[in-house]
Amino acid sequence: MASSVVSFSKTQIIKGGDITSIFDLLKGYGRVAAITGKNHFKVSPNYEKVYDVLSSLGGQFVIVSEVEPNPTVDNINFCYDILKDFKPEVLVGIGGGSVMDTTKALALKLANDGVDVWDCVEGNANPENALPTIMVPTTSGTGSEVNRYSVITNKTKIQKRALRSPAIYPKYALLVPSMTLDMNKYLTATTAIDALSHAVESLVSKNSNPISESFSEKAIKLILSNIFVAYNNGNDLVSRESLQFASTLGGLAIDITGVGLMHAIEHPITARFPHISHGQGLAILFKKIVEHSFMFNVEKYKKVADAFGIKVRGNNDMVVMHTIIDAIDYVIAYLGLNKTLSDFGVEKSDLKYIAEDAIIYMGHSIASSPYSPSKDSIEKILKEVF
Amino acid sequence: MASSVVSFSKTQIIKGGDITSIFDLLKGYGRVAAITGKNHFKVSPNYEKVYDVLSSLGGQFVIVSEVEPNPTVDNINFCYDILKDFKPEVLVGIGGGSVMDTTKALALKLANDGVDVWDCVEGNANPENALPTIMVPTTSGTGSEVNRYSVITNKTKIQKRALRSPAIYPKYALLVPSMTLDMNKYLTATTAIDALSHAVESLVSKNSNPISESFSEKAIKLILSNIFVAYNNGNDLVSRESLQFASTLGGLAIDITGVGLMHAIEHPITARFPHISHGQGLAILFKKIVEHSFMFNVEKYKKVADAFGIKVRGNNDMVVMHTIIDAIDYVIAYLGLNKTLSDFGVEKSDLKYIAEDAIIYMGHSIASSPYSPSKDSIEKILKEVF
Repeated sequence: MASSVVSFSKTQIIKGGDITSIFDLLKGYGRVAAITGKNHFKVSPNYEKVYDVLSSLGGQFVIVSEVEPNPTVDNINFCYDILKDFKPEVLVGIGGGSVMDTTKALALKLANDGVDVWDCVEGNANPENALPTIMVPTTSGTGSEVNRYSVITNKTKIQKRALRSPAIYPKYALLVPSMTLDMNKYLTATTAIDALSHAVESLVSKNSNPISESFSEKAIKLILSNIFVAYNNGNDLVSRESLQFASTLGGLAIDITGVGLMHAIEHPITARFPHISHGQGLAILFKKIVEHSFMFNVEKYKKVADAFGIKVRGNNDMVVMHTIIDAIDYVIAYLGLNKTLSDFGVEKSDLKYIAEDAIIYMGHSIASSPYSPSKDSIEKILKEVF
Repeated sequence: MASSVVSFSKTQIIKGGDITSIFDLLKGYGRVAAITGKNHFKVSPNYEKVYDVLSSLGGQFVIVSEVEPNPTVDNINFCYDILKDFKPEVLVGIGGGSVMDTTKALALKLANDGVDVWDCVEGNANPENALPTIMVPTTSGTGSEVNRYSVITNKTKIQKRALRSPAIYPKYALLVPSMTLDMNKYLTATTAIDALSHAVESLVSKNSNPISESFSEKAIKLILSNIFVAYNNGNDLVSRESLQFASTLGGLAIDITGVGLMHAIEHPITARFPHISHGQGLAILFKKIVEHSFMFNVEKYKKVADAFGIKVRGNNDMVVMHTIIDAIDYVIAYLGLNKTLSDFGVEKSDLKYIAEDAIIYMGHSIASSPYSPSKDSIEKILKEVF
């Protein structure tokens, strides 16, 4: 009688020619709020297009460009205070993971009398409804446009955790490849590593199934065959489009399985050291996590190898493992992300707190991973990437 | 401003331990109708389990075991007449493609005052709502449990066409691998070829995108690595489970892209010769369609080759094509489906009517295929498999 949900996402994915495609999706809404980042979007030519679309709808609208990187409870509350009297009927999130995650949290807060989003993170509040949202990703990493996660930082508790609720599935994910052309080399690199990590973590997860595998395997192939072109020629729309799909596929994959050990250790790092970008944090950990985890589920890692284009049959398991690690190493070094924790000012004395945090609030991600290390073992891994 | 919908399915996929998992999905419904096939299911031990679950719900229920293979408008009307006064709140379809497609058509008819389903097929009626449905597939071919198609035969018009409507997305697809153990060798073979054809046709479709590709590629791999075991040992639950997932993935793939040329020619064949099973009809056409289509989109067929495990790089295109064809030929022969149209009593004089039918009512599937032949060219293909 045991049963489990195999697919979750209720988001309709739309491929748009350009940003004006949101016009069709917004028809019938009288009060629209667009949420964007604090700096970048306001100077982009797309800002004007969004403004024109919203104006042409004939209803009322606001554009809230107040989202900070790594959105905090305070930042979400700040945006909420701007919006609560406006009473929007729909939210449009145009930006990267931070913007989309904030938009989801606001959708929940606005529909539930300003519910405390951290209560939702901790499961003390579980609202069942949220405002409808439309997501327009401008980076290709998070996959937040299609799943039920909103990653929020609590500065008081020094924690970075995901709010998980079926209520915050976006109504539409509008994929417009040209919206990702603005990413610089560093953002292209770090977001691609985020997407790659979602795909790999999902593929080896204890919760994986053939549907999540289909997303992960395709995402890995798309990332590895497009990241070098997009990194070197940011205006190449074909590789940008492929990376955008890969990111969405990664988001669909972790929606089914959740993330794994790498994210479990990374969140506590960037909760304490928010100047390290999420993708860079993952890049620091990536190959060590594979090295420590491989032997715990060789069959699942062979699927990773296969998606990487690495010959599995006829090769010794250890050869397969080292070839995966070498491939990851090569990609990360090529993208300029081969760093250590100490490069970013992390002190050796911080490592035990990071390991402790992982155990305290990322336990479910550790438990679903092939290798589920203790606090001491996590600290050992951290020392290896220090 | 051009935009297109990339993903359609709204069906929640649930993996069940056994058939009693439907209990949780049916909670809250007072009037339940289960739809099954005419013969097989009533003698299966699962019938009793379904009866017990429905009884234990505390509401009213009926089990309508009246669905014929290749459901006709008349058969749907017959089931409708049984159900209309009962006024079910939810329909449970337990069976193969015919049962699930009938259940979808009934869901539409019951929610819309007995609307003529053929009017819906032809687009003259477009109801926006249907009763909620729960699908429990007992074969692994159609993928109907997750998409918006219901294939219906009109005996008067001698046509077999799909009713396509977002209204008929099943609410839940309940995948219970053990429910497919009952399939005999022939049904295992023909349904696997149906699922394989969905995956291949979707992968080469003009409408394909990376999300549909992820479904197709995974489905192809799962089918090719599990069909021989399932065919030879029908009780092997691991291969049954993999084929069930493959079928669902194929159903998700064609939900995005539609089917292609092979189905466009096959439907007119089995509309006229319903004693040929759908999978057998596809098996007759399969390699010839690849042969005629390959050169029209070599890049997409290379994705087929890759999913088949065929080495693409370093091989001449024609070598790749012949290797795909040889692989298809091998699988079909192994499964005992290497037949011709004349083996089933089709006359040479029938071929021109079949070709004409394909043009008349399967035009959209022809148009989305890499190769979009004229009536005469279709007749030529039919002569080659005669």
